[in-house]
Amino acid sequence: MKALQFTGNKTFDLQDVDIQRPAQGEVRLKVAYCGVCGTDVHIYHGAMAQRLSLPQVIGHEVSAEIDTVGEGVSGWQPGDRVTVRPLKPGQEMPVDNGVQHIGQNLKFIGIDTPGGMQQYWNVPARTLHRLPDNLPLTIGAMIEPLAVACHDVRLGEVKAGENVVIIGGGPIGMLIALVARQKGANVLISEVNETRLQLADSMGLATVNPKGTDLLAHVEDFTDGAMADVVFEVSGVQAGVTTMTQLPRVRGRIVMVAIHAEPKAVDLFRFFWRELKLIGARVYEPEDFDEAIALAASGTLQLDALITQISPLADAKSVFETIDNNPAGMKYLLQCDV
Amino acid sequence: MKALQFTGNKTFDLQDVDIQRPAQGEVRLKVAYCGVCGTDVHIYHGAMAQRLSLPQVIGHEVSAEIDTVGEGVSGWQPGDRVTVRPLKPGQEMPVDNGVQHIGQNLKFIGIDTPGGMQQYWNVPARTLHRLPDNLPLTIGAMIEPLAVACHDVRLGEVKAGENVVIIGGGPIGMLIALVARQKGANVLISEVNETRLQLADSMGLATVNPKGTDLLAHVEDFTDGAMADVVFEVSGVQAGVTTMTQLPRVRGRIVMVAIHAEPKAVDLFRFFWRELKLIGARVYEPEDFDEAIALAASGTLQLDALITQISPLADAKSVFETIDNNPAGMKYLLQCDV
Repeated sequence: MKALQFTGNKTFDLQDVDIQRPAQGEVRLKVAYCGVCGTDVHIYHGAMAQRLSLPQVIGHEVSAEIDTVGEGVSGWQPGDRVTVRPLKPGQEMPVDNGVQHIGQNLKFIGIDTPGGMQQYWNVPARTLHRLPDNLPLTIGAMIEPLAVACHDVRLGEVKAGENVVIIGGGPIGMLIALVARQKGANVLISEVNETRLQLADSMGLATVNPKGTDLLAHVEDFTDGAMADVVFEVSGVQAGVTTMTQLPRVRGRIVMVAIHAEPKAVDLFRFFWRELKLIGARVYEPEDFDEAIALAASGTLQLDALITQISPLADAKSVFETIDNNPAGMKYLLQCDV
Repeated sequence: MKALQFTGNKTFDLQDVDIQRPAQGEVRLKVAYCGVCGTDVHIYHGAMAQRLSLPQVIGHEVSAEIDTVGEGVSGWQPGDRVTVRPLKPGQEMPVDNGVQHIGQNLKFIGIDTPGGMQQYWNVPARTLHRLPDNLPLTIGAMIEPLAVACHDVRLGEVKAGENVVIIGGGPIGMLIALVARQKGANVLISEVNETRLQLADSMGLATVNPKGTDLLAHVEDFTDGAMADVVFEVSGVQAGVTTMTQLPRVRGRIVMVAIHAEPKAVDLFRFFWRELKLIGARVYEPEDFDEAIALAASGTLQLDALITQISPLADAKSVFETIDNNPAGMKYLLQCDV
């Protein structure tokens, strides 16, 4: 079978490797599509090198059919259509506070262990979520990022009628917007890239470019003076962090979605003054996958519109290069069953 | 009557002024004690000048007896022993989100309007809270800062058995420690001033000086590896902000009590990684005063031990100078009925 080995230094090697038998408790998947996550792009650029064992297959946004079921696995059969929740909890520690999905010994499948950019992929059966028959496998490969958005919106406690501002309209920002709108929120996306703004507009989402507009005045207008109930910081840059504390009303919530590798200057006075809350949100829990699948299957989110390009696994190198050169792109899928 | 007029530039003038008749809805208080708040010290140093009308009486931590009841006031009689919740809500705005105690048009009595450092003081009757007969009026003057601590602990959702670390052992940090201990929490105070540490020790509170100790290792030890459920940032300095994100376990809470006038560098990655929450907390709501009075009346908090000095109103100048020269002092009271 074909496996896309990441060999470091922005290089992939599509190799012929032996198909592995699934271990106890595992299933072997015939991978249909694997999405390229921002994390994969970071890895491509050399980040998280200490977590990888090169050469290694990466990728964790997968749709697949079950090919073979290993020993000790029940409830799954060859041909079942699935996606993977790529988390492998380790031994529980006191510091974990009983929270399963982000424990200290968590391994992330596709980073700490081999990922889905290959024709066949063995994963623990307990990572599987079933995809409904009516859900295209292209959309199935978007369940994982959609589950991130469901987790973010759930931890932000977004309610119908609330004003929600999303700072950063990349793939996760857009998915958060779609999920929050589905909950009945009034959603505004703040984004600097005009192509992304046009895409959001075409999906009926309210948008603003803070480069050309007074964002505070715009949000005041958009909310009839009430300002934001919930702000999602998805930009990862200082400008977003500076803005995030200016937009919420009294006791508004700010959900920290972006990964800020370095400390940023934060207006802590504003947290005091308006009794704001900052809520960190990371990956997902099983219920977020369940919700993502139900939302995707309902067909109301227009997820198709977020797929920028579908390419065969063999073209991975040019896909990663395209992503580097096209900051306006959204979701790129690799087709693994060709 | 005597009124301590703040005339700007670290100067007070104890003047003879006419006793005013209480307006409609007001009572006239015969002030017993008025505590000196950190805010009063900031004002003394020239801060918040634009909010004052000099010369002006400041002070808002008051115990008193009702002297005269104005028209339209019911439920209160001369001789009633009271403290004052010094908040005057203004017209409600959409941005207030229905939260009464920190609305955009809030006036703070003792800053935006005259305060309690005088023999007689007129205040709206709806700011009053009754003091139990057994509560000394010295302790009555500590209800306002204790209500701040009750508010902070309530918004931090501190529960029995939880591990609580308080960064900064000044008056508010100490009161938070006492309230959290009363809730059954395991409390640790981190403070750099040895005199304050000794006071906390003498009250049976666990303490650590982060200047001489590896604070992370100490908290790990103190909590058997579980780390903090709740951290209170009461230091107001960068070192406290840097520490606050290192101490909580997964889904731990950080309560922002301190006033950080300037933006500070915050490890936002840690919020993401451990799904931490930052919770801003400002002043108090009526229920916090009720709780503070009940706690103080129970006699279990050892509030007496926090009173550094009681001085007549006439000595205000030397009291403020003492506070400036003695960073280890805790609560200074001005006796106003002499």
